[in-house]
Amino acid sequence: MSSEQVIQEIRAFMAARDWDQFHSPENLAKSISIEAAELLECFQWGPDFDADDVRAELADVLTYCALLADKLGLDTDQIVLDKLAVTGQKYPVEQARGTSTKYDRL
Amino acid sequence: MSSEQVIQEIRAFMAARDWDQFHSPENLAKSISIEAAELLECFQWGPDFDADDVRAELADVLTYCALLADKLGLDTDQIVLDKLAVTGQKYPVEQARGTSTKYDRL
Amino acid sequence: MSSEQVIQEIRAFMAARDWDQFHSPENLAKSISIEAAELLECFQWGPDFDADDVRAELADVLTYCALLADKLGLDTDQIVLDKLAVTGQKYPVEQARGTSTKYDRL
Amino acid sequence: MSSEQVIQEIRAFMAARDWDQFHSPENLAKSISIEAAELLECFQWGPDFDADDVRAELADVLTYCALLADKLGLDTDQIVLDKLAVTGQKYPVEQARGTSTKYDRL
Repeated sequence: MSSEQVIQEIRAFMAARDWDQFHSPENLAKSISIEAAELLECFQWGPDFDADDVRAELADVLTYCALLADKLGLDTDQIVLDKLAVTGQKYPVEQARGTSTKYDRL
Repeated sequence: MSSEQVIQEIRAFMAARDWDQFHSPENLAKSISIEAAELLECFQWGPDFDADDVRAELADVLTYCALLADKLGLDTDQIVLDKLAVTGQKYPVEQARGTSTKYDRL
Repeated sequence: MSSEQVIQEIRAFMAARDWDQFHSPENLAKSISIEAAELLECFQWGPDFDADDVRAELADVLTYCALLADKLGLDTDQIVLDKLAVTGQKYPVEQARGTSTKYDRL
Repeated sequence: MSSEQVIQEIRAFMAARDWDQFHSPENLAKSISIEAAELLECFQWGPDFDADDVRAELADVLTYCALLADKLGLDTDQIVLDKLAVTGQKYPVEQARGTSTKYDRL
């Protein structure tokens, strides 16, 4: 299945429930943070996790991300590639290799 | 471009910098929350937002999501579709249409 | 110094800058999440952390919490004590001692 | 009641359940983000909120903040005041009054 078919399924799901009215960009951004924290909760007390819970919560984050991208007319693949290019500039391989140091302290 | 090519670009980017060592599932979950909050910051004081900032931050969230999915051997499209099916059960169209009420209070 | 004096200092700080207009409960809730993620960022790649950074970010979370409590007429000490009583019911010592299991799975 | 008595109540609560073992600074930082998002969820679809829910979730954020401060030997009032002083430098009244613009764009 392609990303285009997935967004069509999501659109159909939301339309059937007349939920688009709640999906302002701001509400979607809040929702992404809310679901991201539910994903984080799978790791609240340590590195071990329930694979089913992580799978479900990651899916929720991705769904709201897809909705926000769609609302703003963005292609999720394209914005990721564009950002990778920018990040590549901030973290040249020679300086960044092997370290997690943030770019402003490289 | 397909999602498969995007994840390959992301893998190559991370491999060139030897960053996979930092990408435990827990660290990726923390990163998703951190980037989700940077996206939320675009809306901190109201509904208006800078489109370029939102685009960049959404891309960061999606990138870490793609990394986590890849680390766990998950297909991002498939887990979204699977979760939609589960959500459809919790929110039947007849009861959920037009309302944002959470399923346990429907 | 008491919590009452701290909230007075915070109120004076915000009044001098005419910032109360931005402090709707919703904006304050968003701000708490945003700052909580900046605190989390101190631990993004592992358990080690810079003490000064953690101190500063924790202070930001607490400041926005104080503002939200003040906006809603809540006493921060009282609501914490009230919630401890509720949590004590959900996690009786006999069942909860020594385990991090969530109450619905105890 | 003073903040010192509240932290003693929290310490006693946690000791009775032998929960200190889970309270690494990193786990507490994750917990603060998780609870902050539950607070944010009260405002997921708009500015209206249930006062009881907000009160309970804000209490959870504050409790984990108190635990983290205690773990690191920090006084919550003092770190807030110290940070206000720093923030005052970044946002002089003359330039910052009446605007929500971030300091790096003032």
